[in-house]
Amino acid sequence: MNSLIVLRTLGMLLLCEAVTMLPSVIVAFSYREDTVFAFLISMAITALVGFALFSIKVKDNIIRYKEGFAIVTLGWLLVSILGALPFLFTGAITSVIDAFFETVSGFTTTGATIIEDIEVLPYSLLFWRSFTHWLGGMGILVLALALAPALGGGTFQILKAESPGPISTKLTPRVNNTAKILYITYTVITIMEIVFLAAGGMPLFDSFIHTFGTLGTGGFSLKNASVGAYNNVYFETVITIFMIASGVNFSLYYIAVRKKSLAEFFKDSEFKTYMLIIAAAIILITLSLKGTVFDGISESLRHASFQVASIITTTGFSTTDFDIWPDFSRAVLFVLMFVGACAGSTGGSVKVIRIHLVFKYMKREVSKLIHPKAVKAVKIGDAPVQEEVLSDVMAFTAFYIIIFIAVTLLLTIQGYDLISSASAVAATLGNVGPGFGMVGPTTTYAALSGFTKILLSFCMILGRLEIYTVIALLFPEFWKR
Amino acid sequence: MNSLIVLRTLGMLLLCEAVTMLPSVIVAFSYREDTVFAFLISMAITALVGFALFSIKVKDNIIRYKEGFAIVTLGWLLVSILGALPFLFTGAITSVIDAFFETVSGFTTTGATIIEDIEVLPYSLLFWRSFTHWLGGMGILVLALALAPALGGGTFQILKAESPGPISTKLTPRVNNTAKILYITYTVITIMEIVFLAAGGMPLFDSFIHTFGTLGTGGFSLKNASVGAYNNVYFETVITIFMIASGVNFSLYYIAVRKKSLAEFFKDSEFKTYMLIIAAAIILITLSLKGTVFDGISESLRHASFQVASIITTTGFSTTDFDIWPDFSRAVLFVLMFVGACAGSTGGSVKVIRIHLVFKYMKREVSKLIHPKAVKAVKIGDAPVQEEVLSDVMAFTAFYIIIFIAVTLLLTIQGYDLISSASAVAATLGNVGPGFGMVGPTTTYAALSGFTKILLSFCMILGRLEIYTVIALLFPEFWKR
Repeated sequence: MNSLIVLRTLGMLLLCEAVTMLPSVIVAFSYREDTVFAFLISMAITALVGFALFSIKVKDNIIRYKEGFAIVTLGWLLVSILGALPFLFTGAITSVIDAFFETVSGFTTTGATIIEDIEVLPYSLLFWRSFTHWLGGMGILVLALALAPALGGGTFQILKAESPGPISTKLTPRVNNTAKILYITYTVITIMEIVFLAAGGMPLFDSFIHTFGTLGTGGFSLKNASVGAYNNVYFETVITIFMIASGVNFSLYYIAVRKKSLAEFFKDSEFKTYMLIIAAAIILITLSLKGTVFDGISESLRHASFQVASIITTTGFSTTDFDIWPDFSRAVLFVLMFVGACAGSTGGSVKVIRIHLVFKYMKREVSKLIHPKAVKAVKIGDAPVQEEVLSDVMAFTAFYIIIFIAVTLLLTIQGYDLISSASAVAATLGNVGPGFGMVGPTTTYAALSGFTKILLSFCMILGRLEIYTVIALLFPEFWKR
Repeated sequence: MNSLIVLRTLGMLLLCEAVTMLPSVIVAFSYREDTVFAFLISMAITALVGFALFSIKVKDNIIRYKEGFAIVTLGWLLVSILGALPFLFTGAITSVIDAFFETVSGFTTTGATIIEDIEVLPYSLLFWRSFTHWLGGMGILVLALALAPALGGGTFQILKAESPGPISTKLTPRVNNTAKILYITYTVITIMEIVFLAAGGMPLFDSFIHTFGTLGTGGFSLKNASVGAYNNVYFETVITIFMIASGVNFSLYYIAVRKKSLAEFFKDSEFKTYMLIIAAAIILITLSLKGTVFDGISESLRHASFQVASIITTTGFSTTDFDIWPDFSRAVLFVLMFVGACAGSTGGSVKVIRIHLVFKYMKREVSKLIHPKAVKAVKIGDAPVQEEVLSDVMAFTAFYIIIFIAVTLLLTIQGYDLISSASAVAATLGNVGPGFGMVGPTTTYAALSGFTKILLSFCMILGRLEIYTVIALLFPEFWKR
């Protein structure tokens, strides 16, 4: 392990973070808020720590996969710690653990909050809080593409397998260029949503906030009742569409634009499965809500669509208290928390492609039973999937479930009820945000113990970095020469 | 598919079943119950159907794996249908679906009941009800050993992998002899438990009933409050020990006896893991109960031990209403429902060896990440596990979880709450018996809809036959020439 290069890279990351605090300073200025000083001092500290680390003299300049792991995990941790400073310096959050939780939740695009009344926060802080979503979402795109090859077989192999090779072959041969293309796509979609929301009458500031929450699939709002506060079908429709769009593999946009054809989307089997799951979930929940929670089909469809899109993309906005829905609807949403969006998107959780491959894996096993002598490769579209990728997917899913069970037990041991515990873990590990019961959409994570908040912060990072990167660091083997 | 040999074999099975009704007739005679006629007519019908099927002329006498699948699945179904006759003819159960559910629950050694007051049933019927557990448990031993090789890679490979080759190599080369050895072991342990219980003062009839429920890891009692009705620490201790013993791979007894050494048990890694999980669960639950449900440590330990042994072995007896325990204790029991006992025992669920292998699989995947070039085989003890076995285990576990989720959704869609639904499915799929909420230890499955009872009966068979056998039959591929 070349610790020096790790520290130096972390320094660079913090210098970048300091710069990302600038827009919040501008917001503070333009709204004449007294938070300017708090932001400037946060920036200064972040920049100073960053500069100190960046000044470290490094002999060997090569980042190998072990260094990659350490940079990614420690990077998200450090960025969250320093990103919490504005919350503390403005006095909006007094507890260090709470401020850390809120910032981790922002950067990991989870959207779980400990702030019980968001509407009293200054604009600059609301901006910073939601901007972390947007930055985190972008960070994931870089991670998935630029750093993924360094992460061994895992993530990168899946990205290769998931759609007919868009990342490794079709985009551009150089990682930097690929990242640039994705940034542009991300920015263009961001601008589109802001325009659509503002054009429909949403205040511009609110449009920014909800767009940051949408694109990063984060879910922080500036209203206590989330998007439901506007009670506006147009806003909900726009946000629903953009949430679903943010859950799509971003490289598909590039391919579709280059080939000038929307049909490219439907050539991707993950996209098709993703759309199919969304449609099925909306229909089932609509039927379950009609006559129980809402009188008519249209209100049922309206809220079912929004909530399904919000949960499967792991965004976490809400238009209604879905925690009072019938258990069937809640169970479907709970299952969607484990599905997540497409790989290569800003969404979290297990991801559609993995679920898809798990099913194909199971189907092959039954086939083997029926035709013991015929060994078939699992295919996605026409492309065979490497066995290595399959075992990675199976192990990932197993890790995901076992971490979910273990942390849920650690929550119930403190006396929290099973539904609240299980959904809090599912919602943080999957980077969703709200869950059920104590952490439902009308409540916050504030009431949980400090130990629980740290545990769930860890889950958010674990989920965001797709487990392996973090787990590898916990193995003693990793630290051996 | 050679349908004729399938039918003929099923006929033989039914003829055997008719004979197994004889002990109940004897019980009816000796207690001078008016159920004699009901049993005789049930026997006659079963024998007649059996004889009709057995008389089918068969040209090709060979049972291949496809025929094996069909015989096993249809066999358990048919045996349960005809085994339900005594319940109907005595008038103890009036609904056909309820009688079927109760009999499936008996033969699959689940122990989920729809009878709200067991204590009013005639002795002969109580005997038959519990005798199905004992027969089912024995059936599983034959299945696992005699028929498993026909079931492709799956079960048999696991049996081979789980302990250093006891079944395929060390017992005897011939399947018939192996089955005989297991029958003797099963019978000896049965007699031991009856003697221990009766010697401690339990009425002889009650000793039989509870022993049948223990050995088959079934769980039907003759008291509404299950074993708790006696409030007797000696009985509980004896039953706890025999439940744990019934969850052990039966071939280990043979090996231990032959080598005259108890150390043989501790050479088996599944056995060690099984004991470790039991010990850990007992300690955790004891700590959670002390001061909340029970005052002292001894009462906590007493009920924790019994319930842990009962749930992990998928027996389902209870000494107290564990549904009112703290959520942590309930969550631990819920997780144990998915663990189950050892392979090659009469216990159900996923089985310790599979869970053990899933963990080893995950560990290897992380190792690959750290040492990308070193590919290591997963080992159990010193023996490497074939990749084929590993993929079988991963797919089985995935099937188990997905069936659990799907059926739980089908229950919530009818309006049952999430905890009741999830635990009813876990408790039937895992052949445990009681769950939580609506199907907790102090209540029954009676209140559920007919559709739900059929669905859960299907889960019991699915769980009992370890999924693949039944699933294969549902694939259109299976029926192709």
